[in-house]
Amino acid sequence: MSEYRHDPVNGHWVIIASNRSARPDEYVEADWERVSTQCPFCAGNEEETPPEIVRFPAGRKRSWQVRVVPNKYPAVAPHDRPPMGLPLPLQALSGYGVHEVVVESPRHVTSWTELSVAQVGLVCRAFAQRLSELRGRGDLIYGVVFKNVGAAAGASLEHVHSQVLATALLPPPIVMRMAHWREAFHDAGKTVVARWLDEEMRAAVRVVATTENFVAICPFASRVPYETRIVPLKQQPYFEKTPASLRDELAALIHDILRRIERASARAAYNLIIHTAPFDTPPHDYYHWHLEVLPRLTRAAGFEWGTGCFINPLAPEAAAERLRRA
Amino acid sequence: MSEYRHDPVNGHWVIIASNRSARPDEYVEADWERVSTQCPFCAGNEEETPPEIVRFPAGRKRSWQVRVVPNKYPAVAPHDRPPMGLPLPLQALSGYGVHEVVVESPRHVTSWTELSVAQVGLVCRAFAQRLSELRGRGDLIYGVVFKNVGAAAGASLEHVHSQVLATALLPPPIVMRMAHWREAFHDAGKTVVARWLDEEMRAAVRVVATTENFVAICPFASRVPYETRIVPLKQQPYFEKTPASLRDELAALIHDILRRIERASARAAYNLIIHTAPFDTPPHDYYHWHLEVLPRLTRAAGFEWGTGCFINPLAPEAAAERLRRA
Repeated sequence: MSEYRHDPVNGHWVIIASNRSARPDEYVEADWERVSTQCPFCAGNEEETPPEIVRFPAGRKRSWQVRVVPNKYPAVAPHDRPPMGLPLPLQALSGYGVHEVVVESPRHVTSWTELSVAQVGLVCRAFAQRLSELRGRGDLIYGVVFKNVGAAAGASLEHVHSQVLATALLPPPIVMRMAHWREAFHDAGKTVVARWLDEEMRAAVRVVATTENFVAICPFASRVPYETRIVPLKQQPYFEKTPASLRDELAALIHDILRRIERASARAAYNLIIHTAPFDTPPHDYYHWHLEVLPRLTRAAGFEWGTGCFINPLAPEAAAERLRRA
Repeated sequence: MSEYRHDPVNGHWVIIASNRSARPDEYVEADWERVSTQCPFCAGNEEETPPEIVRFPAGRKRSWQVRVVPNKYPAVAPHDRPPMGLPLPLQALSGYGVHEVVVESPRHVTSWTELSVAQVGLVCRAFAQRLSELRGRGDLIYGVVFKNVGAAAGASLEHVHSQVLATALLPPPIVMRMAHWREAFHDAGKTVVARWLDEEMRAAVRVVATTENFVAICPFASRVPYETRIVPLKQQPYFEKTPASLRDELAALIHDILRRIERASARAAYNLIIHTAPFDTPPHDYYHWHLEVLPRLTRAAGFEWGTGCFINPLAPEAAAERLRRA
């Protein structure tokens, strides 16, 4: 059982999930490259995960390409009833939600750069399928897809995987983002992301790569070295509505960016996050889905924790230049 | 030259400080305990730091107890003029500010637990002295004192030290905190911290230790295991106005809490942050100074970066219980 809690002093929100302290940690005494023979995500060890929710079969009998399973150590779970309202000061709400793991390959590799572009496309299809279903349920309000690669990025298992986490509460930073984006759209007649995109495309110096429908940029106010934001050029609130015909184009761009980052900084740990519009009532005409890659080469220290402001030692113009050459 | 930048998409704020990529990193191939013979902070190596701003002399000639020096790799510096207003979309403001290092002992030790309580009291006096002077200058708006202990907490040098960083812009999370705290105080006639304190003292389960004038609590919505907040029992907006007569009492409480944390988790890396009221116009009758200790035993991963919400595997009630027994 986990709980949502709100801190009246800082205004932040946490999930207290004591059950997660039991989860295994391959990285405790190991580096990024350790190969686990006891990996619960490897082909042949399927019985070590809870029963699967999604399976994309492969050609041969009993083999598969992608599996989605419930997280064995969930931060949130669909017990009890969804909580109503926001947590009050020092009053916890049950940690109602869904926490799933996408096993992205039957092979024991660690980064998307070790998968084919087609396989990354399949993984994106699995994300879309899960987000669509979770959005449709009606008892959840927010869903996020994220990927932790390497111990420095918070991964506890190295086998290539992502997580889908959907909550019954809207995190306060997302509440603020939505209010600001809605207001700015109504004021300017253009979304916040579209305006940012216009300025970045005009400046051009932070653009790493473009395809027909997507662009990858090291944002002007990058928090960490090689931070990269990937967005569709045309406004679309829902990642999961990306047409199947564009999925391989998107997968190729993500794959390319990750390869460039890993060339610029060998074996970089990174987080990848997909921001799609909340599950609340549309229209989300002011929302752009977007994807963030956050290499974890620096460590947030006291200043970042104390002020929410990041000190980044690599200017995004220099980062984009290095990634373009990589 | 560094720059303040604002991200129009996420609303966050960063300091791009390319000069900091040149700073030394003792931890790259070393663990928490490495002893550096080339330490710029050790007694005898004083010429390796920029000229000192503050020096508390010791008994013998040329020896000292605490020194404050400019940071050799500053994130912000007092060049040019202080910037006016807030950064506009994709418009950088010069990184005007002050970044100092407090060398907390002539001895090559790493944690406050290796100093005497009296020495920690002296260090607090140095913090107070620097904050008072920076507040009085008139060209800065916010000052924060922070301490990074151990590589996992972002330290690059192990010799016991803290940093004082003052900026010419108010970080957005602080702007929001001030607005919320001011409004809540006017609504309730009691500060946000005082109300939180009332509820924590009533519940009692998360209190770790109290002295006559201070209390240390693992907050209800702790973001990380063993997070501890230390506050004065009586409202006081300015850390630097803590009466000299209470400084040793405060130092003893901080020392005790850090010792408990290190007993509960050997050689825990941690950040320590002192939040004092901004340098803008008083009255700050709605503000409480407070101190946070954030052990860095877990790593922020994709979910935390994506939502601003932390997943904490150790309930603060259990954390407080363990710290009380430690």
